Amino acid sequence: MTSTLRDPMSLFNVKDKVAIITGASGAFGRATALTLGAMGTKLVLVSGSSDELQSVLAEVEDVGGEAVIMKRRPDSLEDAEAIREFALETYGRIDQLCIASGYNKAGFIQDMDYEDWQAVMDANVRGAWFMAKAVGSYWIKNKVKGKMLMMSSVRGRHGNISGYTAYCTSKGGSDALTRVLATEWGQYGITVNSIAPTVFRSKLTAWMWSDDPVGRATKERSLSRIPLKRLGEAEDLMGMALYLLSPASNFCTGQIMYVDGGFTAG
Amino acid sequence: MTSTLRDPMSLFNVKDKVAIITGASGAFGRATALTLGAMGTKLVLVSGSSDELQSVLAEVEDVGGEAVIMKRRPDSLEDAEAIREFALETYGRIDQLCIASGYNKAGFIQDMDYEDWQAVMDANVRGAWFMAKAVGSYWIKNKVKGKMLMMSSVRGRHGNISGYTAYCTSKGGSDALTRVLATEWGQYGITVNSIAPTVFRSKLTAWMWSDDPVGRATKERSLSRIPLKRLGEAEDLMGMALYLLSPASNFCTGQIMYVDGGFTAG
Amino acid sequence: MTSTLRDPMSLFNVKDKVAIITGASGAFGRATALTLGAMGTKLVLVSGSSDELQSVLAEVEDVGGEAVIMKRRPDSLEDAEAIREFALETYGRIDQLCIASGYNKAGFIQDMDYEDWQAVMDANVRGAWFMAKAVGSYWIKNKVKGKMLMMSSVRGRHGNISGYTAYCTSKGGSDALTRVLATEWGQYGITVNSIAPTVFRSKLTAWMWSDDPVGRATKERSLSRIPLKRLGEAEDLMGMALYLLSPASNFCTGQIMYVDGGFTAG
Amino acid sequence: MTSTLRDPMSLFNVKDKVAIITGASGAFGRATALTLGAMGTKLVLVSGSSDELQSVLAEVEDVGGEAVIMKRRPDSLEDAEAIREFALETYGRIDQLCIASGYNKAGFIQDMDYEDWQAVMDANVRGAWFMAKAVGSYWIKNKVKGKMLMMSSVRGRHGNISGYTAYCTSKGGSDALTRVLATEWGQYGITVNSIAPTVFRSKLTAWMWSDDPVGRATKERSLSRIPLKRLGEAEDLMGMALYLLSPASNFCTGQIMYVDGGFTAG
Repeated sequence: MTSTLRDPMSLFNVKDKVAIITGASGAFGRATALTLGAMGTKLVLVSGSSDELQSVLAEVEDVGGEAVIMKRRPDSLEDAEAIREFALETYGRIDQLCIASGYNKAGFIQDMDYEDWQAVMDANVRGAWFMAKAVGSYWIKNKVKGKMLMMSSVRGRHGNISGYTAYCTSKGGSDALTRVLATEWGQYGITVNSIAPTVFRSKLTAWMWSDDPVGRATKERSLSRIPLKRLGEAEDLMGMALYLLSPASNFCTGQIMYVDGGFTAG
Repeated sequence: MTSTLRDPMSLFNVKDKVAIITGASGAFGRATALTLGAMGTKLVLVSGSSDELQSVLAEVEDVGGEAVIMKRRPDSLEDAEAIREFALETYGRIDQLCIASGYNKAGFIQDMDYEDWQAVMDANVRGAWFMAKAVGSYWIKNKVKGKMLMMSSVRGRHGNISGYTAYCTSKGGSDALTRVLATEWGQYGITVNSIAPTVFRSKLTAWMWSDDPVGRATKERSLSRIPLKRLGEAEDLMGMALYLLSPASNFCTGQIMYVDGGFTAG
Repeated sequence: MTSTLRDPMSLFNVKDKVAIITGASGAFGRATALTLGAMGTKLVLVSGSSDELQSVLAEVEDVGGEAVIMKRRPDSLEDAEAIREFALETYGRIDQLCIASGYNKAGFIQDMDYEDWQAVMDANVRGAWFMAKAVGSYWIKNKVKGKMLMMSSVRGRHGNISGYTAYCTSKGGSDALTRVLATEWGQYGITVNSIAPTVFRSKLTAWMWSDDPVGRATKERSLSRIPLKRLGEAEDLMGMALYLLSPASNFCTGQIMYVDGGFTAG
Repeated sequence: MTSTLRDPMSLFNVKDKVAIITGASGAFGRATALTLGAMGTKLVLVSGSSDELQSVLAEVEDVGGEAVIMKRRPDSLEDAEAIREFALETYGRIDQLCIASGYNKAGFIQDMDYEDWQAVMDANVRGAWFMAKAVGSYWIKNKVKGKMLMMSSVRGRHGNISGYTAYCTSKGGSDALTRVLATEWGQYGITVNSIAPTVFRSKLTAWMWSDDPVGRATKERSLSRIPLKRLGEAEDLMGMALYLLSPASNFCTGQIMYVDGGFTAG
């Protein structure tokens, strides 16, 4: 019997690994940071907001984790390379990359300005491409079997009837990026996957949990498509994030993992 | 019994409709132009190459079709609007939009310059977004139940192991654009679909039909994944293109139609 | 220029072909029968109801078609072979096979008897398997590049919250049967595809178009998921059926073609 | 901060739960048994082979687990109910159901006897339906938020060119069963998911790891489609199995989780 069969939890061992998390102050980035932090991974937390980074850093330390922060967004290859170099200078290695940065601006295509559409595409697809290129090049050159996790959404697979032209397009692009990186980098032992939720509670969606009538109506409409009859919480994404960033998923790559209350099945 | 049941071919009647075809000098654009032209649709053929447009125009006229040409690429919203206005000035209406323009440059992400990646994304996703916005706005305002057809590829769904990082990402984006436009514009009776082939014979792939050893090897590798044991011809796409651009598909929208020799099934 | 490019309608030429249609008295079977009949295909109409077969036969003849009828269901391999032999004896060949027979009985798994579940599976999966085996064997032995079309549903891909345990399972099975037959028979030039609607008007769904309050409520709920804001009519399926049963689809195999008002895209 | 965020491993806590595992002597059943056993779940191991059950039982006890065995296959509703009752009599509750029993017999449809085809369907679809009905009824009546895991395969989504007509069809059926049960049972808080590998090492595939030339050729052909450049091991499935059978997946239902070395992405 192999040692793995004897000790299943060893599959989730990420102690002393080093992870970069972009968008670390968002709901998913924060949940991933706390998960990995509590498990002993050293973290490089990246975001455009210093205040929020400080807050996440304090939480990570509160659960016994170790982290450094960097105020930066992957808006250019230079940004992405600076993030990579900061991680290498700080911890000497990078094992995991979690791309949780992103952006949305609602609007129907017929009403939307080009600049707004491009901003969504840039944040959600180009930003991921920059981070993947910067860190993947390092992994390939240094023979690191890295693990990359992207943030997707059910909207990469399902259109929406309320002005998500830009967001859907960007998530379809990032899903295909996940698949093609997985197939191109499989030979190096690198895995690339995405996690795709439906609506889950975050600063951006807090209004749907409020007493606001539009919020309540939107929440009801969302719930009508979700077999499990509730919306998601950041905690719902933690188990899958840990799976995809730990040795447990070493034979799993190129997948968009829906943690969506059954939305895509219904 | 309805008149449609009595006369199935009426479903494919596109006579006196007006279609814009971008990328009209490419293999798929040309096949669509000849198909619609022979069926009596008036065509606005758009491409970046004057010589090739002249050649396609001559062929369309040879099959009894009527067309005008415009040398332009949808590189900006202004370009797209100019194409729309040219069509309206020439024929007074637009019923169909076939976006067959596109671009590819091979290369692994770790080796590729940002500019090359962005060029593929711009041609394949942004260009479609510009054309959809320009023509869709006209359709919505004028209550035209237009039919839009985009050019996709099996690569929107399947990664590739030979440096298609940019192309796959762009096709995943355009597939999601197809779905979200379909869901947002369904209320107006507009249909939006894509046709997705695997490798088919074109100027760009002619080397795979040659005696070149690399070409032959590439062809063999492609064939090993195709149950029907041949690569595609432009003619193979005509029937589906006509279906998606004619009343036959009035209840079909948001689909990526694979005409791929069985590639995606295998 | 090829003759096909000169004459696109030649792609839909099914004149003097011979087709078997099971479930010919159902809404989809009847629409396919009228479509092919009007186009000059000779038909073998098969169903479990003599009266209904007589009615469809009269309609086919009314549109100028030629057909024979056979009261039989593909409940065993012997049934399927008898249908095949009747077609061969009548017309000397078989070019197309449209499997439109099927059955549904609603019920949640926890409440349903085994016999009812098995009856749905037998009609929708086993019946297709019998017909495919009987006719496919003839095609392979006689080197006929036959075209097979199965009747699926969006329910092969999407679960349902109102007691479709058996139906969904059967359609998932038949979709996979479509794909595996396509990959196994591609080498013989045989194509195998499915057409998958959402709710469309038929004898079985007529109550949803009535004044019955439950019918109206069910219709409203269905419509809320359909971007094109109407349910389907049998006529909506004709164009795709003709595409999949004619030379137009000679490079298209193993596909589940959704003609669903955008349901699967939304 | 929630307690879950403070303690991510609590998400994988399955201690003192009770699981039924059918097909417990197969490679996936055994790996799941050892995983859950080592984590403190009490097991009811079910299989058609007493000798193999004894062997798995010994291994479970060797890793500190607790289990009982039952020689039985879910060939009828009575069998499934007997398995359920044995579990309830032994441990007083059931929290997880892992359906790992199954069967394959290769053969092209044109060469295969009906009985062989039906045997594959019965083992892989009907057996799952019986187990789901027996245990799900208990869960619903007793308000248990149970977790159900089925064994699928990439073959539910991809056809095969070497005589897998029956197997592919059965896996397509079981995948749809997964989705429909998830949507129907979501209201009760029950989750239903599948794990879908490509070829992985087991008694049935051992010949592909041998020196046998056909085995080697088959292995090479399989590897050519797998980006990670190796076939699977039972250990590769453990992490996903634990995820899907533990609270970590409480918001994840109706999914077919591919742990396939990137097969489906390529």
